[in-house]
Amino acid sequence: MNQVSVGILGCGTVGSGTARILIEKKDLIFSRTGVDINLKRIADIDPSRGEGLPIGQGVMTTDAVSVIEDPEIQVIVELIGGKTVARDFMIRAINSGKHVVTANKALLSELGGEIFPLAQEKSVDLAYEASVGGCIPIIKSIRESLVGNTISSIRGILNGTCNFILSRMTADGCGFDDALSEAQEKGFAEADPTLDIDGFDTAHKLAILNAIAYGMNINLDDIYVEGIRDISAIDIAFASEFGYTVKLLAISRQVNGSVEARVHPTMISKDNILASVNGSLNAVTISGDCVDKVLLYGHGAGMMPTASAVVSDIVDVARNIVFGGQGRVPLLSYRPESLSVVPVKPMAELQTCYYFRFAAADRPGVLSRIAGVLGNHNISIKSVNQRGRRVGGNAPLVMLTHRAVEADIRKAVLELAELDCVADKPVVIRVEDENGNL
Amino acid sequence: MNQVSVGILGCGTVGSGTARILIEKKDLIFSRTGVDINLKRIADIDPSRGEGLPIGQGVMTTDAVSVIEDPEIQVIVELIGGKTVARDFMIRAINSGKHVVTANKALLSELGGEIFPLAQEKSVDLAYEASVGGCIPIIKSIRESLVGNTISSIRGILNGTCNFILSRMTADGCGFDDALSEAQEKGFAEADPTLDIDGFDTAHKLAILNAIAYGMNINLDDIYVEGIRDISAIDIAFASEFGYTVKLLAISRQVNGSVEARVHPTMISKDNILASVNGSLNAVTISGDCVDKVLLYGHGAGMMPTASAVVSDIVDVARNIVFGGQGRVPLLSYRPESLSVVPVKPMAELQTCYYFRFAAADRPGVLSRIAGVLGNHNISIKSVNQRGRRVGGNAPLVMLTHRAVEADIRKAVLELAELDCVADKPVVIRVEDENGNL
Repeated sequence: MNQVSVGILGCGTVGSGTARILIEKKDLIFSRTGVDINLKRIADIDPSRGEGLPIGQGVMTTDAVSVIEDPEIQVIVELIGGKTVARDFMIRAINSGKHVVTANKALLSELGGEIFPLAQEKSVDLAYEASVGGCIPIIKSIRESLVGNTISSIRGILNGTCNFILSRMTADGCGFDDALSEAQEKGFAEADPTLDIDGFDTAHKLAILNAIAYGMNINLDDIYVEGIRDISAIDIAFASEFGYTVKLLAISRQVNGSVEARVHPTMISKDNILASVNGSLNAVTISGDCVDKVLLYGHGAGMMPTASAVVSDIVDVARNIVFGGQGRVPLLSYRPESLSVVPVKPMAELQTCYYFRFAAADRPGVLSRIAGVLGNHNISIKSVNQRGRRVGGNAPLVMLTHRAVEADIRKAVLELAELDCVADKPVVIRVEDENGNL
Repeated sequence: MNQVSVGILGCGTVGSGTARILIEKKDLIFSRTGVDINLKRIADIDPSRGEGLPIGQGVMTTDAVSVIEDPEIQVIVELIGGKTVARDFMIRAINSGKHVVTANKALLSELGGEIFPLAQEKSVDLAYEASVGGCIPIIKSIRESLVGNTISSIRGILNGTCNFILSRMTADGCGFDDALSEAQEKGFAEADPTLDIDGFDTAHKLAILNAIAYGMNINLDDIYVEGIRDISAIDIAFASEFGYTVKLLAISRQVNGSVEARVHPTMISKDNILASVNGSLNAVTISGDCVDKVLLYGHGAGMMPTASAVVSDIVDVARNIVFGGQGRVPLLSYRPESLSVVPVKPMAELQTCYYFRFAAADRPGVLSRIAGVLGNHNISIKSVNQRGRRVGGNAPLVMLTHRAVEADIRKAVLELAELDCVADKPVVIRVEDENGNL
């Protein structure tokens, strides 16, 4: 019997879900692989976390190092999270020649430059399907299914918390704070939601996708990040009038040898299939020259969906161990020799369309002054909406621009904020128009 | 240098697209695999088909057998189509120990019972990602990414011709014939569209998906098939009033050890993401116990999207040749020893909701007589719509039922057709309701 022994580090939500699948689906997995996957040890600082699991005595331990060093264990599944202990254990496992499976997007996107070369050097597998998009098979699809495509862009809804909040605000017209509270009550948002709502979690995922899609080194630092904290119901309502939906999108695009990489609230056409992705669901669109575009959609988080992806990685690694093929797919999709430092385009050079909302004084000449400032910065207006809804004594004036340059927009915003006929800084939301090839 | 030599049989649309990717993306594929994939020969009965391709002299031949028997060629790519010559060449290739890549859904779904066991016996790979859903990575996702899931259902829009026609009818209110003509003009439908519009192509694909999802032998014969020829604009309009969109769906569901498998026009909620799949695009939703559901979406046909999937298979096979791992994933997703004869549930036992349209005489008592017949057959009405639009002197009367049994529906339809107050046979369209877990 072909047996592969596995040790899990971290028995939290995803760890216990993974253990459950490996145990309860042992026969199913054998019938599909011919491999007996033996969950030999689970390490957690709190051994009571294993109490609900159908595991034998001696499987749970508080000693992660003993799991890593167990000579029978060939695959270490790191589900601790964070960048300290998880990093140390992962490096120790790789150095011990163990294959590693992880869901740790923060670790891979921030310290991937250290970890991937080490795994390469030690000839071990490092599998990370669950790090992006939960159960959505995005890593495998880019690495394997799209192998003949020059990938031109990625657009994704990669954070369920943000998508839940924006979906609620869209459906009910409620404000950000109410939607966040509801997300927290329903378990779709952490008590401290910063990493999610400020866009960092999405950026972690985009950094990983960019690397495998474009053959570039992992580069988190150069991704522009803006979260959804400042989105208000009125902007979502105006977006809807223009035929748009607001989503927190991860966007990257390969343009002339450099890559555009950004995370921000984005207006997209309601006709775009990403606009139909609601609630805590995730979806990613990959554009490639042969496929045009492919969209993958599913639960981006949660115990069992994420564990499903972890298990698919464990099985992939186990198949490599039993049937051969370790190293058949390069860890980061491209051979290490082919990875290059692809420059990330400065955000100031971005060209896209923009939505502006001004709290404008309701008197003659205001529109002309605003339009004048925009015109001076090469920003051309596509449509204007002034409906007389009053917000704090001023009338909201809304504009959509044609394609403009981000640097010009920033200069215009500074100048507009100085106008005496405009209260507050204007709200600016980027729009992906049809020419953006969504 | 790791080299794998490939021969293509059939230089039609997909064959020439595949050749183009292998040649033009040679460097990209090498940078992602470390394998030099050498397109050594292309066979076609009409050698002029290779004229536009950037291939050297001697690559094109009319002699397919010489390609199959070429001792340097390790992978045969069958893109001839049909079930006669293609079958003979495929069997010859397998018997010669060649790995085979194909997009031939008709062949695999009708003769898979002969071909898969032979490939298994000869220990060759038989890869067929392009046979279902064009560039959508559905085969790989079921075989590998969902390996830990007990798959409970599949629902897919798997024929671009039908989806184009229904989308046009929905958007414009035009009739079936006009939409079909437009599809033919635009190249989305063949001159003889029977295989597509009558649902057989979709059934071929469902038979393949069922096998790999549920671990059953390929079973095309027991799939219920109904095409879109009889769908009329008025039914699409009524569907819309009830909040539904009409799609040709492939549906299968695992229920208590048997599988429900059917292809027919289906009303689904507009909120369902499948309802947003328009034009010639395809999409598949897979439900599994861990993932809940995953949807994959993209071009289900066309030269380059289909060729992209063929190339992904060629690369998979080449990776197995070079790095080892042949047989690491069972051909039909389950080990041959684990495949079983899963019975397909008779269509008469189906339970779902139904839409009825009657051309009813506009006089008192009609509704009561119709409702009486339905009630006698245990069919309970959920809603009724009678709007007085006249069609041929009768008023269309539309009803949605609660869940009912197909056998009862059939008996009721026969009885209703006999009523003197109902002109013609009623139109019946199945509805997937929310309890259907779409």
